[in-house]
Amino acid sequence: MRKIVTAALQMGPIQKSESRKDVVDRMISLLDQAKAAGATLAVFPELAFTTFFPRWYMENPAEVDTWFEAEVPSAETKPLFDRAREHGIGMYVGYAENTSDGHYFNTSILTAPTGEIIGKYRKVHLPGHSEFDTERDFQHLEKRYFEPGDLGFPVWHSQSGIMGMCICNDRRWPETYRVMGLQGVEMIMLGYNTPAVNSQMPSEGPEDRLFHHRLSVQSGAYQNATWVVAVAKAGIEDGFPLIGGSLIVDPNGKIMAESKTLGDEILVHSCDLDLCTFGKETIFDFARHRRIEHYGLITERTGAEVPPE
Amino acid sequence: MRKIVTAALQMGPIQKSESRKDVVDRMISLLDQAKAAGATLAVFPELAFTTFFPRWYMENPAEVDTWFEAEVPSAETKPLFDRAREHGIGMYVGYAENTSDGHYFNTSILTAPTGEIIGKYRKVHLPGHSEFDTERDFQHLEKRYFEPGDLGFPVWHSQSGIMGMCICNDRRWPETYRVMGLQGVEMIMLGYNTPAVNSQMPSEGPEDRLFHHRLSVQSGAYQNATWVVAVAKAGIEDGFPLIGGSLIVDPNGKIMAESKTLGDEILVHSCDLDLCTFGKETIFDFARHRRIEHYGLITERTGAEVPPE
Repeated sequence: MRKIVTAALQMGPIQKSESRKDVVDRMISLLDQAKAAGATLAVFPELAFTTFFPRWYMENPAEVDTWFEAEVPSAETKPLFDRAREHGIGMYVGYAENTSDGHYFNTSILTAPTGEIIGKYRKVHLPGHSEFDTERDFQHLEKRYFEPGDLGFPVWHSQSGIMGMCICNDRRWPETYRVMGLQGVEMIMLGYNTPAVNSQMPSEGPEDRLFHHRLSVQSGAYQNATWVVAVAKAGIEDGFPLIGGSLIVDPNGKIMAESKTLGDEILVHSCDLDLCTFGKETIFDFARHRRIEHYGLITERTGAEVPPE
Repeated sequence: MRKIVTAALQMGPIQKSESRKDVVDRMISLLDQAKAAGATLAVFPELAFTTFFPRWYMENPAEVDTWFEAEVPSAETKPLFDRAREHGIGMYVGYAENTSDGHYFNTSILTAPTGEIIGKYRKVHLPGHSEFDTERDFQHLEKRYFEPGDLGFPVWHSQSGIMGMCICNDRRWPETYRVMGLQGVEMIMLGYNTPAVNSQMPSEGPEDRLFHHRLSVQSGAYQNATWVVAVAKAGIEDGFPLIGGSLIVDPNGKIMAESKTLGDEILVHSCDLDLCTFGKETIFDFARHRRIEHYGLITERTGAEVPPE
């Protein structure tokens, strides 16, 4: 057995007015709880250091920059990384990345229990739009503030397993899981900020949103025989509600743990990576069963094209 | 609104001893019920004319041939096609196909309400194995009796919609839905024969099998904003149990109708194809959101390869 005691560290809302320091203090408190529970891996949400700022339309680049990290760890976020190293806990942390050469990504990093940063992922599937949209009940401007990720979907060896990352909307795209599945992934970590109401269809509320979230995560886990740990920033941020529903899902697609609140909350599960083996060697033994000669459109064509009648 | 009143025509078990004529009589009775319910589309199971013969190990080619159709319709199956035409019902029907040039496929065809055969699909994802397996509780010899389908995943214009087909194990593979999604599919029809116990893990019984079935069908529907109609051959065939759980799933991934029995049973739902539009134009607008530059492994690599440490 290769067990990783894994903590999903859901975070409640972060208001615009809260400082990085306030947030990092909360994250350290969650990390202490993870340590007390015996965890060696902690998964934080997407954009964990700030409010979900893409809901705000901004035109001033200097204002936009205040939501991004120019370096990680910075003076303000270093105490989190120090504490994780002291605890011997590897971390997934999401943040807004401003590169030294002027690029902007929705990013996550993976650290080893030794504290070393061993992996970086940049969100590939950016939802939303880039200009102010008068048709929506609220804005979702990820395509305005971020470039699509340029690192693909790599995997990393850590804590005896093969680890992968993605972020929020990536989880709705089966390509995300499959590209990692084709590299033998055994645990996919992801953070998310998901509005509790569809900005383009007000009748689609939190129950529907949680249903789609679970459906996407559970099917991705099952169809690639991998653990998936999905962690929310939840609750009401400056009047805008986000779903909770953080999940630890096993390689059979079953929910092993699920959050109950919309606040800071810890889920812990001992994830046995050897449970991935059965699926990977039988029904999802890709080498025996996949037929790539019929999958061409998936990489040839971006959008849908209806064939002529 | 483009509504297709659709009948999922679940079939109970077919024993080895039952004749084609007996089976066709049952199918005609189901078709009559579909007509009475106002349906213009009827979906039958995989291998609808016979027992699920791949559970039997056979070495004699002449014996194998008895389970295949050399022509469709044949003298024995023609009454079904005649009745469908009389009723003005288009059909999906699964059967074992023996081509005139010596090939063997697990096939389905689509007819128009006029009776014309307008589409053929051959199962791409064959589960199971090709030689007698002493490690299994029972055999699943699809790889022995069938070649993988050679027609890809086409779609067809019929009844004002864009229709696709797949068969049984295809539904567990997100590539199946996505290739059709990239052609704008609005309704995917599939039949299945799914053992109620995993032949390689006896503890995985009907509840787990139904869970995986629903998860695969519902996620495929949601992630491609398409209707999916999934129809079982169910119940105990010569001592071997098959799950039921026939489903009509909407483009939101929600179950609109589900079978309650393991016998011949009809589900009817009026499927509004225009409900596909919202998903296809927003969260799953592939042209805006897919990033094919990061999907390369899906078509480059058949099996999983773990990168070096």
